[in-house]
Amino acid sequence: MKKQSIAIDMDGVMADVEAHFINWYNKEYTENLSKEDIRGKSESKAFPVDGIIKKYANSARFFETAPVMDGAVEAIRRLQKNYEVYVVSAAMEFPISLTEKRNWLKANFPFISWKNIIFCGNKSIINTDFMIDDHPKNLDPFKGETLLFEAFHNLKVKNHSRAKNWKEVLDFFEI
Amino acid sequence: MKKQSIAIDMDGVMADVEAHFINWYNKEYTENLSKEDIRGKSESKAFPVDGIIKKYANSARFFETAPVMDGAVEAIRRLQKNYEVYVVSAAMEFPISLTEKRNWLKANFPFISWKNIIFCGNKSIINTDFMIDDHPKNLDPFKGETLLFEAFHNLKVKNHSRAKNWKEVLDFFEI
Repeated sequence: MKKQSIAIDMDGVMADVEAHFINWYNKEYTENLSKEDIRGKSESKAFPVDGIIKKYANSARFFETAPVMDGAVEAIRRLQKNYEVYVVSAAMEFPISLTEKRNWLKANFPFISWKNIIFCGNKSIINTDFMIDDHPKNLDPFKGETLLFEAFHNLKVKNHSRAKNWKEVLDFFEI
Repeated sequence: MKKQSIAIDMDGVMADVEAHFINWYNKEYTENLSKEDIRGKSESKAFPVDGIIKKYANSARFFETAPVMDGAVEAIRRLQKNYEVYVVSAAMEFPISLTEKRNWLKANFPFISWKNIIFCGNKSIINTDFMIDDHPKNLDPFKGETLLFEAFHNLKVKNHSRAKNWKEVLDFFEI
């Protein structure tokens, strides 16, 4: 029988870009923000400098040096046994990120084939059985089953199943 | 009413990589191959040097300098009026091509939004109403309507509608 398929988002799900934004922000503005401080805030409230998130996302080496999300490597390895796993990242807005994200995946998730990687603009034409993402805008139009990965900016979202971390993702898939 | 969607391949459809491979090959091996010479041949018979196509595809500036396919710009502009057009390129095998292809699209098709560009490994999870491609391997598993764009290597393929050029693509869509 053909395995069911899962589309997994990179930023905020496989890569802890939240921690990475905080680190870069603290360094540039000599601040001391923590994950706790930005919990429940929008991006613009969390980092109150106009356009700062886009600036970092457009900076060389930002994506290449992002830390891996806790538990992601082992969890995805386990999901692969029962599911066809695709990485689907909305990378197209930031051209500099394309090669960096490809390199980052190769370095941190070498067991994911290039055949299963998709970089796109929006995710509306992605057709898998499941989608894991931290942005409701990607999950809302999705026709399969959705799982929202918790992030500081999505605490109030109610219309998707939720996972606080990779352990809860595995629980969702009963693995 | 929501527009129907078309996934359009880059290499061999929007970009004339056939001409480009011939040019690079002729230059390196002081040959005088023409499009007519390789018509109906497989890639390896057309360019009889082991791995030469992959070598060029992995070379810096190969994709960035590829010529635009005759008639592609005007035809895609016209298709956009009636269809949601996505560019779907199997770019992931050649990491160096990612940023180059993004730049090439921006330079030659500036009217296509980054939101409508997808770089992937294989195209099996792409869900649009139509797909235009020169490789039957991408069209065979596709669930929507298919259109094979003619290339030297696909002359014998019978199981898809065919277009010899961009004029015939417009004819197919009755535009």
